[in-house]
Amino acid sequence: MRRIYLDNAATTPLDECVLDAMMPYLTSQFGNPSSIYSYGRESRLAIENARKSVAKILNAHPAEIFFTSGGTESSNTAINASVRDLGCKHIISSPVEHHATLHTVEHLHKTGEAALSYVKLLPDGHVDLADLEKLLSESTDKCLVTLMHANNEIGNMLNIHAVGELCKKYDAIFHSDTVQTVGHFPFDLRNTYVHFITGAGHKFHGPKGVGILYVNENIKITPFVHGGSQERNMRAGTENLYGIVGFAKALEQATANYEKDSAYIKSLKLYMMEQLQQHLGDVSFNGDVLGCSLYTVLNASFPKTDKSEMLLFSLDINNICASGGSACTSGADAGSHVIRSIANDPDRVAVRFSFSKYNTKEEIDEVVEKLKTLI
Amino acid sequence: MRRIYLDNAATTPLDECVLDAMMPYLTSQFGNPSSIYSYGRESRLAIENARKSVAKILNAHPAEIFFTSGGTESSNTAINASVRDLGCKHIISSPVEHHATLHTVEHLHKTGEAALSYVKLLPDGHVDLADLEKLLSESTDKCLVTLMHANNEIGNMLNIHAVGELCKKYDAIFHSDTVQTVGHFPFDLRNTYVHFITGAGHKFHGPKGVGILYVNENIKITPFVHGGSQERNMRAGTENLYGIVGFAKALEQATANYEKDSAYIKSLKLYMMEQLQQHLGDVSFNGDVLGCSLYTVLNASFPKTDKSEMLLFSLDINNICASGGSACTSGADAGSHVIRSIANDPDRVAVRFSFSKYNTKEEIDEVVEKLKTLI
Ligand SMILES: Cc1ncc(COP(=O)(O)O)c(C=O)c1O
Ligand SMILES: Cc1ncc(COP(=O)(O)O)c(C=O)c1O
Repeated sequence: MRRIYLDNAATTPLDECVLDAMMPYLTSQFGNPSSIYSYGRESRLAIENARKSVAKILNAHPAEIFFTSGGTESSNTAINASVRDLGCKHIISSPVEHHATLHTVEHLHKTGEAALSYVKLLPDGHVDLADLEKLLSESTDKCLVTLMHANNEIGNMLNIHAVGELCKKYDAIFHSDTVQTVGHFPFDLRNTYVHFITGAGHKFHGPKGVGILYVNENIKITPFVHGGSQERNMRAGTENLYGIVGFAKALEQATANYEKDSAYIKSLKLYMMEQLQQHLGDVSFNGDVLGCSLYTVLNASFPKTDKSEMLLFSLDINNICASGGSACTSGADAGSHVIRSIANDPDRVAVRFSFSKYNTKEEIDEVVEKLKTLI
Repeated sequence: MRRIYLDNAATTPLDECVLDAMMPYLTSQFGNPSSIYSYGRESRLAIENARKSVAKILNAHPAEIFFTSGGTESSNTAINASVRDLGCKHIISSPVEHHATLHTVEHLHKTGEAALSYVKLLPDGHVDLADLEKLLSESTDKCLVTLMHANNEIGNMLNIHAVGELCKKYDAIFHSDTVQTVGHFPFDLRNTYVHFITGAGHKFHGPKGVGILYVNENIKITPFVHGGSQERNMRAGTENLYGIVGFAKALEQATANYEKDSAYIKSLKLYMMEQLQQHLGDVSFNGDVLGCSLYTVLNASFPKTDKSEMLLFSLDINNICASGGSACTSGADAGSHVIRSIANDPDRVAVRFSFSKYNTKEEIDEVVEKLKTLI
């Protein structure tokens, strides 16, 4: 039975051309990028070229791009630095952030290093900007606003420019978890009021174990991981050379094919919506599904029955990969904190389908066909 | 001109069989290890098998092994946890530690979270155990002792059992940076008094961007990187699946061939010593070179002349990779803090040669031949 992979928000397969770009660094070109001989400098050059390429695509300066071990480390770095280096004693976040943000801000709250507020959400799951302004205007401390650009479970996208303007007005530091949007949308960081954004290679057909942190050139922070002088003294540790090369290649590839791929993937999402509505009767969708939303994510909700409660399990038996929430907590079986925050209907079951350029309409037909028997 | 790579303490090439083991996870087997469907569970299984294999080789329990992004992150985690979770308010370290340790302990000292003492060194570069006991016995605070198992620049090896016994006697937490010894020496952690050890895949023909932290089961720490529930809630972030698989494979490979490889590499080190003494007149060696020392590292010292001051540069021109100190600071051109600490003779120039199973006597002959003309 052929596998149908509709969990691309959890992770994506490596693009073949990305692996090709990585291979020399997995074989003959293994020199330590910090070594001073020419063989090491060739590795350094590969990293600096990757940095330049990433910076150019995001319209940032190469000095603003730091390579890390992934999106989680990037968010930890940004949030810790805001509190410990930039004097933010009040963190404003939302209940639907990824755990990389939530657990980090909760930790800083628990240690007493920062106060913590959660902004209200609108019924469609979007951040209530009026409430955000209220929180900012009432704060007596310098604030860190950490709000994700796109929610990985329901796909809702933040108006990053509107939030940036509010942060500017109230002199707040702004971190946005952009793990679901880097490699999926164009960025123009030089014209975006944001201090930190994050990215993870494996979310857009790049490698696992590598991410980026953008740090706006106007702010100065200290490292989160201390040690050697890699990443201009900002992130110690021998660089994940092939990971970095792969990250850049994947971002280049995604950028080059953005128009085509995004239109195609969006058509898959809309097709699946339509097919579900046509064939499954009582289906609804979580989040602002046709509005400000990722074209990659469709979070569908079905009435809870004995059968539908087993839905993910039944899909798995049929070799269909989809998820109930974010991958990194699905093992915990605690349900989705995102779905709970926005639409806590205990009589419905939510399933996230997420798409990539490798999916097809035929796969969606098959999945809808299966769902008819499974619900 | 063929390259001669004698900088294996900086990083090593991937073993072909390690890359082979990684390839499925770089191509078809890309599922997120935290996803609950079977395709994700296959990735989880690969990680848990890697963990079991690593634990078995080190004679530890799988629950004591955590995968990280590298040796640097592992040491940051151990040292921060000792201070923040385990109540160590006094850190005892040495001036010849790797910067992953030094910069971390200096940071905690600077923030006022811990007092900091450096143990004295003996003339051969070994830690003065009497001084260590003095520091421990005089401390009024709970201590963290962080001392490296083997020095990456001069190769000196610590008597980890003797230090462990002292830590036991004075109820101190013991962290040892074992980045240069994991994959190069047998470990028996169940019979070693140590709370934390670290490893980095790329130092023994495994991948870059992945490391381990061993945390003794008797102690409980909180995560350094917060977020998802990966690594049993101890290290958040989507796992570097291929890196982890590669780490385990490299360690298995190194362990299977330990007797053969270590004897061979040691013979190269001794041969180079002998050849240098025979052909270069005034050569000496830094550290306890024939005593308690890595078989992989030879730190040679030559009289300073106009020519020898250019030595690394000249070696590079001749396509010979060797280094003046640790790679991760060589860019900084500040010289070696290790050499400064043990043998600060401004009239001599130090060069580290470090060997792997891929080096040959012929390469050493060539290098010695070149050195004759370069010094
Ligand atoms: C929105 C969001 N933020 C952060 C992360 C964390 O990224 P990583 O697991 O690669 O560290 C993820 C994915 O896991 C995500 O979807
Ligand atoms: C002794 C020692 N400790 C720690 C490290 C840091 O390891 P990594 O750079 O892989 O994080 C190294 C090598 O760089 C080392 O030689």
